[in-house]
Amino acid sequence: MTNEFDDVARLAEARERLQEVVASGDSETVSVGAAAGRTLAAPVRARRAVPHYERAAMDGYAVRAEDTQRAGRSPVALDVTAEDVGPRNAAQVHTGSHLPDGADAVVMVEQTRDFGDTVEVEASVTPGENVAPVGEDVDTDQHLYDTGHRLAAADLGLLRGAGYDEVEVYERPRVSVVPTGEELVPAGEEPEPGEIVETNGLSVARLVERWGGQATYREIVTDDIDALGAAIDRDTDHDIVVTTGGTSVGERDLLPAVVGERGSVEVHGLAVRPGHPAGFGVVDDTLVLMLPGYPVSCLVVATQLLRPALARAGGFDPDPIPRTPGVLERKVPSEPGMRTFARVSVEGPEADGEQATVTPTRTSGAGVLSSVTLSDGWVVVPEGSEGYEAGREVAVERWDWEP
Amino acid sequence: MTNEFDDVARLAEARERLQEVVASGDSETVSVGAAAGRTLAAPVRARRAVPHYERAAMDGYAVRAEDTQRAGRSPVALDVTAEDVGPRNAAQVHTGSHLPDGADAVVMVEQTRDFGDTVEVEASVTPGENVAPVGEDVDTDQHLYDTGHRLAAADLGLLRGAGYDEVEVYERPRVSVVPTGEELVPAGEEPEPGEIVETNGLSVARLVERWGGQATYREIVTDDIDALGAAIDRDTDHDIVVTTGGTSVGERDLLPAVVGERGSVEVHGLAVRPGHPAGFGVVDDTLVLMLPGYPVSCLVVATQLLRPALARAGGFDPDPIPRTPGVLERKVPSEPGMRTFARVSVEGPEADGEQATVTPTRTSGAGVLSSVTLSDGWVVVPEGSEGYEAGREVAVERWDWEP
Repeated sequence: MTNEFDDVARLAEARERLQEVVASGDSETVSVGAAAGRTLAAPVRARRAVPHYERAAMDGYAVRAEDTQRAGRSPVALDVTAEDVGPRNAAQVHTGSHLPDGADAVVMVEQTRDFGDTVEVEASVTPGENVAPVGEDVDTDQHLYDTGHRLAAADLGLLRGAGYDEVEVYERPRVSVVPTGEELVPAGEEPEPGEIVETNGLSVARLVERWGGQATYREIVTDDIDALGAAIDRDTDHDIVVTTGGTSVGERDLLPAVVGERGSVEVHGLAVRPGHPAGFGVVDDTLVLMLPGYPVSCLVVATQLLRPALARAGGFDPDPIPRTPGVLERKVPSEPGMRTFARVSVEGPEADGEQATVTPTRTSGAGVLSSVTLSDGWVVVPEGSEGYEAGREVAVERWDWEP
Repeated sequence: MTNEFDDVARLAEARERLQEVVASGDSETVSVGAAAGRTLAAPVRARRAVPHYERAAMDGYAVRAEDTQRAGRSPVALDVTAEDVGPRNAAQVHTGSHLPDGADAVVMVEQTRDFGDTVEVEASVTPGENVAPVGEDVDTDQHLYDTGHRLAAADLGLLRGAGYDEVEVYERPRVSVVPTGEELVPAGEEPEPGEIVETNGLSVARLVERWGGQATYREIVTDDIDALGAAIDRDTDHDIVVTTGGTSVGERDLLPAVVGERGSVEVHGLAVRPGHPAGFGVVDDTLVLMLPGYPVSCLVVATQLLRPALARAGGFDPDPIPRTPGVLERKVPSEPGMRTFARVSVEGPEADGEQATVTPTRTSGAGVLSSVTLSDGWVVVPEGSEGYEAGREVAVERWDWEP
C-alpha cells in the first residue's frame, strides 16, 4: 500500500488528453422555440431577408422625394392617399410599416401639418430618407452562425426572423453519475457512525445539467470490483460515466483497476490541490471520469475536467468563468508543481476606483464542503508558483454564477 | 400626435419604483434534489453535524495516543484489533472511516510496520492527531444560509449532508409574455410585405426562464383596445405580465392607455437608448411591464427591468452581470441625460498583461437584431456623460454568458 501515484499529470496535459478521447456527439433537429442554450451542429445562413420589405423608419408620411424638393423654402401641399403613392401624393405611415408602392422616402410627422385630405410638408427629403431598406438587419443567404454557436435568447428571435422554425443542434451529452463507496447511504436514511449521506453524486448531477448535459443519477455502488465493473458496463452507451469516490490508492480504491481491466486508464493522479486522486480512462469509447470522494476535491475536478469534457461532447467552447478582480488579504500557500485552487471570500470594493478585498478561507481541508458554500469563489495558483503573497492582485473565479 | 413622453424616467428611478410595486412570491417545499437554482424562502440551520462521528483523517492505525509516547525514540509494538481500541491496541483505519471506540488518534500508515497480529509504530501522536472531529465541516444547529440564498450544486450536497431532504424555496415567478402588434404573424407563416414574424415574445420567454421564472408564451394580440385589455385581464393571476410592442406614442400604441384604464401607469418613457418607449404599470397588484417593439430596445429593457423584477418576485438579489475589461477602439456617442447601451465586439487580449480591444458596432439601429447576436457584449454610458472617447478603459457586460 502506497500513497504515491505512479504518474501525476498536470492539469493542462490531462485536459489535452481529454480532448483527444472525447468525441462530439450526434445532432438532432429541434424547434427554434426549444433550442435555447443548445449548440448549432451546422452553420446557419438566412433563408429570408430581415426586413423582407422596405419599411418606414419614422412615423410620418411616405412620399416621392422629388415632390418635396422645394419644401425647404416653403411648405408643399400633397394629397393624402391610402393607396399607392403617385406624384404629389402622401400616405400616412408608422414606424416599421410597409413603405407604400411608389414612395421612396418618409417625411417625419413633426415636419408636416395635417389638413385632412391634404398634408403640408415643411422639409425636403432625399430618396431613401427615413426608409429602412430590405435586408437592413439581415440579407438573404447572409451567414449568421458557425457550427458550435450556443443559442442565446436573441438568437432565437433572429433565427425565426430569418426563416427558421427548426435548427440542427448537437444532442445534449448523456452523462451517467455513479456515486461509489461502502460508507455511503442514500438520502432519507439516518446515517450511523461511519456512514455518510451521498452528496457528491447529487451535486455532480446538477453540474452536468448546468453545463448542458443530461444526467442519469445512479444509485450508490459499494466498493466491490464486480459491482463497480457492472456499473460501468451498464452505462457505456452514455457519452460520459462519472464516478465519485474510490480513486485514491488505498485498499478500497478499486476504480482505476476496474477501468484499466475494461479499457485504458489515461490519467490517474492529477497535480491539483485539492483534487489530487482524480483520473480518467476510456471503456468502449466512453469517457470514465473518476472524481475524488472528498467533496471539495470532487467539485474542483468536476469544474476542471467534467466541464470541458461536456463542452467537447456537446460541440461547443465553454464560456470563460466570470472573474472578479481584487487584492489578497493573506497569503495563499501552494506546493510547487501543483495547481492550487484556494477558496476565498470577496468584500467590496467600498467605492469606485477601490479594489475588492480577497480573503482566503482558513481551511484547506478537502472534506470541508461548508468552506465552499460559504466562500465567494476561487483563486488559482499555477504550478510554477510557491503561492501568492498578501497584497497581490488576483482574479477570483466565480463558479456558481447564475444568469 | 407627438413623439414626446410626458415624463421620462431615469433607469435608477424606474428600478426603485419597480422594487416598490413588485412583491416577493409565495413559498413551496421541494426536495433537495429538485432545488438547484431555487431561492431559499427561510434561513437554514444544520439538523445534523457533518461529520456526525469522529473519523480518521489519514490511512493508518487508530490508537490511544498515550501508548505512542515513547515511539519517538524507538518503535512501539501494538496488538492489532478489529474491535474497540483498548490499551496497547491498534485498529487499521482508512481516511474517512469511523474512529473506533477507545482510540483518540491515528498514526499514519507511512509511520508503521505491519507484522500481522502486531504493528510497530515509529512515531508518537498526540490526542486528536489525524482525527477529524465531529462537526469539523458543520456543527449541529450551525447557521448555513440566509433567506434569499440561491442554491448552487455544492449547496445541495451540504443541505443533504446536514440532514435536509426538503427545503422551503420561493415559487418561481409566473410571467405571462404577450406579443402585441397587428403587423405580427406567428412562426410557421410566411410573412407578406408589411408583416413580420413574432420574435420578441419568443426571446423574452426564454429570458424569463433563464432568469428563474416560468413563462407563459401567449399568442399575438393585435392593436385593439379591447383585445389588449382582455389579454391583460386574463393574466393578472400571474406575478408579471410582459408585453412587447405598442409602447410608443403613435396612434396604434394603445398599451399605456389600456393599462392606465385598469390600474396605474407608473413609468412611461425611459431615459435609456435604445429602449426609450418602455414603461410599466400595475393592474390588480400585477406588474405589467411594457417592452418596446424594436428587438434591440426590447432586449435592453428586458435586461434592465424584467431581470430585477423577476429577482424581486423570486426573492433573491441577482448576481452581477459578468464583465470583461478592455479599451475602446472608437468613440461611443451618447446623449446627455440618457443611459446608452452600446453593442460592442471584444478581441484579445493577445498576451498576458495586454488589454482586450473593445469595438462598438457600426449600427445603433434599434431594429437591427443581428447587431446584438454578432456582438460580444455591451458598454453602458451613464446619464451624465456625452459619450466615451476612444482609448478609454471600459467594462463590457456579457448578458449572454452561459454556465
